[in-house]
Amino acid sequence: MTGTRARFEAMWADLHPVGRSPVTAGYRRFAWSEADLTCREWFVGEAVRRGLDVTVDRNGNQWAWWGDPDGGGAVATGSHLDSVPDGGAFDGPLGVVSALAAVDLLRDRDVRPVRPLALVNFTDEEGARFGVPCAGSRLMTGDLDPDRARSLRDADGTTMAEAMSAAGHDPAHLGRGEEDLGRLGAFVELHVEQGRALVDRFAAVGVARGIRAHGRWRLDLYGQANHAGTTRLADRDDPMLRLAAAVLAARESADRHAALATIGKVNVEPGGTNAIPSLVRAWLDARGDDEAAVRAVVAAVGAAGAAEPVEESWSPEVTFGRPLRDRIAGLLGGAPVLSTGAGHDAGVLSGAGLPAAMLFVRNPTGVSHSPAEHADIDDCLAGVEALATVLADLLTGQS
Amino acid sequence: MTGTRARFEAMWADLHPVGRSPVTAGYRRFAWSEADLTCREWFVGEAVRRGLDVTVDRNGNQWAWWGDPDGGGAVATGSHLDSVPDGGAFDGPLGVVSALAAVDLLRDRDVRPVRPLALVNFTDEEGARFGVPCAGSRLMTGDLDPDRARSLRDADGTTMAEAMSAAGHDPAHLGRGEEDLGRLGAFVELHVEQGRALVDRFAAVGVARGIRAHGRWRLDLYGQANHAGTTRLADRDDPMLRLAAAVLAARESADRHAALATIGKVNVEPGGTNAIPSLVRAWLDARGDDEAAVRAVVAAVGAAGAAEPVEESWSPEVTFGRPLRDRIAGLLGGAPVLSTGAGHDAGVLSGAGLPAAMLFVRNPTGVSHSPAEHADIDDCLAGVEALATVLADLLTGQS
Repeated sequence: MTGTRARFEAMWADLHPVGRSPVTAGYRRFAWSEADLTCREWFVGEAVRRGLDVTVDRNGNQWAWWGDPDGGGAVATGSHLDSVPDGGAFDGPLGVVSALAAVDLLRDRDVRPVRPLALVNFTDEEGARFGVPCAGSRLMTGDLDPDRARSLRDADGTTMAEAMSAAGHDPAHLGRGEEDLGRLGAFVELHVEQGRALVDRFAAVGVARGIRAHGRWRLDLYGQANHAGTTRLADRDDPMLRLAAAVLAARESADRHAALATIGKVNVEPGGTNAIPSLVRAWLDARGDDEAAVRAVVAAVGAAGAAEPVEESWSPEVTFGRPLRDRIAGLLGGAPVLSTGAGHDAGVLSGAGLPAAMLFVRNPTGVSHSPAEHADIDDCLAGVEALATVLADLLTGQS
Repeated sequence: MTGTRARFEAMWADLHPVGRSPVTAGYRRFAWSEADLTCREWFVGEAVRRGLDVTVDRNGNQWAWWGDPDGGGAVATGSHLDSVPDGGAFDGPLGVVSALAAVDLLRDRDVRPVRPLALVNFTDEEGARFGVPCAGSRLMTGDLDPDRARSLRDADGTTMAEAMSAAGHDPAHLGRGEEDLGRLGAFVELHVEQGRALVDRFAAVGVARGIRAHGRWRLDLYGQANHAGTTRLADRDDPMLRLAAAVLAARESADRHAALATIGKVNVEPGGTNAIPSLVRAWLDARGDDEAAVRAVVAAVGAAGAAEPVEESWSPEVTFGRPLRDRIAGLLGGAPVLSTGAGHDAGVLSGAGLPAAMLFVRNPTGVSHSPAEHADIDDCLAGVEALATVLADLLTGQS
């Protein structure tokens, strides 16, 4: 494993400075931004160095092939390289770096695949820029309408189509990738755990059972802009008060429905210290074991804010298929099986009918979507070893 | 008045497009921005057209002189041209345009001043960019420390010193303007009313009694950034909940103390839809009849948010001096006398010992700091007429 460690650390060091804020030490690798393009170039470089053939599908996802892409029943692995605002180093990149490191390990061990292997960097998994998570995989499966995707705007008013064009990707051909999907027989995504279940179980690596139902909603709370120093309290229509009610309702109703609800993004217009807002726009993230629980939370928050929540994304609960999950759990003998509240491209592909599975790597604090997100190098290498074991089996065993 | 109307409307039309958002129809004329510099050039042009001598003081305030600046006991009038975010057209510019129109009227009427008249455009009255209102007049009186001013930063991290330098004003000489103040004998500021007192009294023009105590405080609500989809409610330290408590406490305590309190500006970090915030920064604007009421509100908001409010500006209550106020009220026979909750450069100068007064022009809706802010043209012209009457008396009568 010495070679693996050195190669892993070298890749990690190359990615380390890309899109990292010197102020927060968090990452800002938004889809199609300069930082994201640097990450994409890095992916191409690592693939080419290994003699893999790089293709970019119609939706902008990057693929690096070991073997003939049309050889049938390809095994895919990978994750994403984009980040949330001030995100951590591991969410996404760990799956891509581990996939590359696993290829090296398979070759060290002289594994001879009988079917193609694809390493994938899914574009725009976080949805941090245009508001729709897993945009790359959802476009591929047809879950995201290409016209809607093209017209999504970032905070500066740039559309996804414009951002893609500026980055050199033609957005005219977005849409379900029949051929791309047809090449695949299975997808395995390795990801840092975003919780402490593996810590509690003293395990470096786990296997995913499923993903909880989750979605994003926008609340547009309109008021009447006016002077903060001269408008009587009784004459005010101040939407900040309705935001406060919505925030408190989110916590209270999530608690009641054993769900999670978070308001983590707020825009205030006009945003002057001495102006009563004309509009407070807030985004609600809600997740639960089933759709009914999540819908109940969203309704409670909308009622408290006196606004109709606008659904920006929705992901039903996912249970990864038993055959692949059981096969992987068997290979990793005794690895804990756990559910997560975080959405992933693996969930999107599973929902589209592709056998998909996930491996999780232990996160000592459970913190994620933050510069404090972490995984120990020994646990990362255990993840690479587990992924290589799974890939060797899928690439050489019965499909 | 036909000439006055035409001249007023021509000036208004020239200013109309400057810094106006095509989306909101509100103004974004932040200090030292391109829009502000266009307004400053416009002021110079109007002054030069009238044969007035333009000077810029060490703090960046613009002065246009009719007569020798050092003639002694100058009468000053004017206001400011900068705006809050998405502000209205009248707050500030009405006082400057009316001052220019009043000069024309005095000349039409062949008034011969026995002391100099100064028209002034105070810089950065709103404090929208760097957080400190009345920065230009406060620097002049010494109320704002020049080192603190130079190091104030806007949302992009640009310091006031950098913004001034980029706009061609050397920030090295900021500070109390002994000579500038020494030239002045009185200051009269005309302003759109930011309430409905004149509507209720069926009067086009009123005279200010005073300005309520007011200030701005910043609340830094720190939490622990984490994944919105995986962090249990019990494990969260979510500062958005403390913001909600602070917002509700602001309203409740303001009501209890017959004060006003507003949270109109909020920044959330990292600001991701699926991230629990690491920091919610909120600004509190609080105003009341006296300092005790305001301090009580600020303390209640800080306690609710579990944060020590950081004072960014403080303005004690102002009562404009009786001799000048009574003289003006007498000249305008029967004009209502009213207090306001809004801060003004006239309040800063009055606090520094200069005889200062304000005229208010009726605002049909009372709305201010909003694109809906308005004054009817007939009321604006009544304001010009009143201002000319006051200036004629101050320029030719006993000082």
